[in-house]
Amino acid sequence: MDIPTHEFLYEVMFFDTDCAGIIHNLAYLRMVEVARTALGSLVGLSPAKMQETQLFAVVLHTAIHYHKAAQLGDMLLVKGWLKSIHRARFFCAFSITKQSEESPLITCEQSLGLVKMPSAKPCRLPMQWKEQWPHLYV
Amino acid sequence: MDIPTHEFLYEVMFFDTDCAGIIHNLAYLRMVEVARTALGSLVGLSPAKMQETQLFAVVLHTAIHYHKAAQLGDMLLVKGWLKSIHRARFFCAFSITKQSEESPLITCEQSLGLVKMPSAKPCRLPMQWKEQWPHLYV
Amino acid sequence: MDIPTHEFLYEVMFFDTDCAGIIHNLAYLRMVEVARTALGSLVGLSPAKMQETQLFAVVLHTAIHYHKAAQLGDMLLVKGWLKSIHRARFFCAFSITKQSEESPLITCEQSLGLVKMPSAKPCRLPMQWKEQWPHLYV
Amino acid sequence: MDIPTHEFLYEVMFFDTDCAGIIHNLAYLRMVEVARTALGSLVGLSPAKMQETQLFAVVLHTAIHYHKAAQLGDMLLVKGWLKSIHRARFFCAFSITKQSEESPLITCEQSLGLVKMPSAKPCRLPMQWKEQWPHLYV
Repeated sequence: MDIPTHEFLYEVMFFDTDCAGIIHNLAYLRMVEVARTALGSLVGLSPAKMQETQLFAVVLHTAIHYHKAAQLGDMLLVKGWLKSIHRARFFCAFSITKQSEESPLITCEQSLGLVKMPSAKPCRLPMQWKEQWPHLYV
Repeated sequence: MDIPTHEFLYEVMFFDTDCAGIIHNLAYLRMVEVARTALGSLVGLSPAKMQETQLFAVVLHTAIHYHKAAQLGDMLLVKGWLKSIHRARFFCAFSITKQSEESPLITCEQSLGLVKMPSAKPCRLPMQWKEQWPHLYV
Repeated sequence: MDIPTHEFLYEVMFFDTDCAGIIHNLAYLRMVEVARTALGSLVGLSPAKMQETQLFAVVLHTAIHYHKAAQLGDMLLVKGWLKSIHRARFFCAFSITKQSEESPLITCEQSLGLVKMPSAKPCRLPMQWKEQWPHLYV
Repeated sequence: MDIPTHEFLYEVMFFDTDCAGIIHNLAYLRMVEVARTALGSLVGLSPAKMQETQLFAVVLHTAIHYHKAAQLGDMLLVKGWLKSIHRARFFCAFSITKQSEESPLITCEQSLGLVKMPSAKPCRLPMQWKEQWPHLYV
C-alpha cells in the first residue's frame, strides 16, 4: 500500500559537525526538516503552497534517538515517510543511515498539525487524505 | 533538596524565526543547547573541561513538545535542570516560557551519556555525583 | 562624541565549533547578528518595533575578516557600533575578541538599509538620526 | 580554459527564512558553504581528505552583497568557482540566482588558506595546482 516517502543522499558538511569530531545533534534535525519539507510536497503541502495559502504545517512534537556517530564527509541516506494520521494530527517518521551501513545513526518521529497564519488557528487536515491513505488513519 | 538548575533570559532574534512569522522549531533546541551547556558547567562538565579531557556529554535522546508560538523580540525565560540519573545516563529537563506568562512555549527532555573521544567509548558518570545528588538516582 | 555601541560576553558553544576543532566561520556571524540586533534597539529599531511597523533593517553587504581561531568554552567579547551613515544606508562595525586578549579574532563591517515589508520598498532613515549623530554622516 | 566550478539547485526551506518573510542573510552563507565544499572536492580538498590529513581549508575573508530578496519554496541556482590563486591564498566566487531569473540574489567572494590542525600552522597550496590552473595564478 502507498506510503508517501522521500529519501535523499546528503554529504556531511563542516557546519554539521562540532569539535568532538562528529555530527552535532542539531544538524540531524536540519536533515529531518529537509526530508519533511519534501514529504510535505508529496502530500499537497509544498512550501510554495503554504506560502500562498498561509496554511502551515507546524511541528507539535519531535522525538529523536541518537544511536551512532558519523563524521565530516560521510554520505548519509536521509529517509522520511508519513507514518499515521489521527484526527487533526499526522505523524512522520525519519531515519538517517550511513550509505554503506544498515543500522541507522538516528531515528526520529514528529507529530504535526495545520494552522492558519497569522491567527495561528488550528485547521482540519485535507479531506482527500482520507481517500488517498485510508490505511494510515488510526 | 539541591537540583542543579540554570536559567537565563533570551531575546528572540531574526534567525530564530521563519516566514510563518513565529519561532522556528529548531531555534528552541539551540536555546536548549545553551541551557544544557550551562547546566554541564554546574555539574563538572564545562566546555573547557570537556575540551581538555576529551570526555564529552553526548545527547542520546531528545523529546520536545511545542505548546505555543512566540515571535521576534519576545523575551523568553529558558530553564534547564538535572532531572534524574540512571546508571550511565543522566536526564535533563527544559522549559521555555515567555517572560510575562505562566504556561510554557515548549517543554523538553534529553538523556545523555559520557563518551571518550576520539574512540567514542562510553564512560561511567563521575562517582561524586552519587554523593552530591543521591535523590536524583532512580 | 556619542557612538551607539553594544557589547556582550559570549561563551563558545558546541554548535559554534566544527570538527577542525575551532569556531566555524558562520558562527561568528550569528554573534554579529546578536550584536547588530541590540545595536538596532539603541537606535530605535528594536525587533518588537520592526515587527510592529513592518519596517525592517536589511543587510546589504557583509565583509568579515577572520584573523585568529578560538575554541569551545572560550569567553568572547562581541562588540558592535554604528560607524557611519550615508544617504539611505548605515554602516555598522563589529569586532570579536577573546576576553583575555587584545587583538581581535574577527573584524566585520555591514551596510544596511530600511525596507517596508511586504512590498520590500526601500525607505529613508529616521530623520532624528541626523540630529542625534551628525558626526556619523559622511 | 578550465575553471573548477560547481553548481546545484536548492529549494528554500523554512529554516532559511525569517519573519520578514524572506531568506535570512545567514542562510545564503550556508549555501555558499555547501558550494565551496563541493568545489574543494574538485581541487583535491574533499571533506574526507581534510579529515584524514588534518589539513583544512580555512576561510580568511568573506564579502557578500545582497542584491534581491527571495522566499520560501523558491528554487535557487547556487554556483561557485575557483577565481584566482595568489601565493598561499586562493579566492572563490559565488552567485545565487533564482532558477527563473538572470540577475543574482547575492554575489560573494571568499579567500582561503590551508592550515594544519591542531597546530593551526599555515601551509602551502598543493604544488600541482600551478600546473593544473596556471591561468588562475595572479
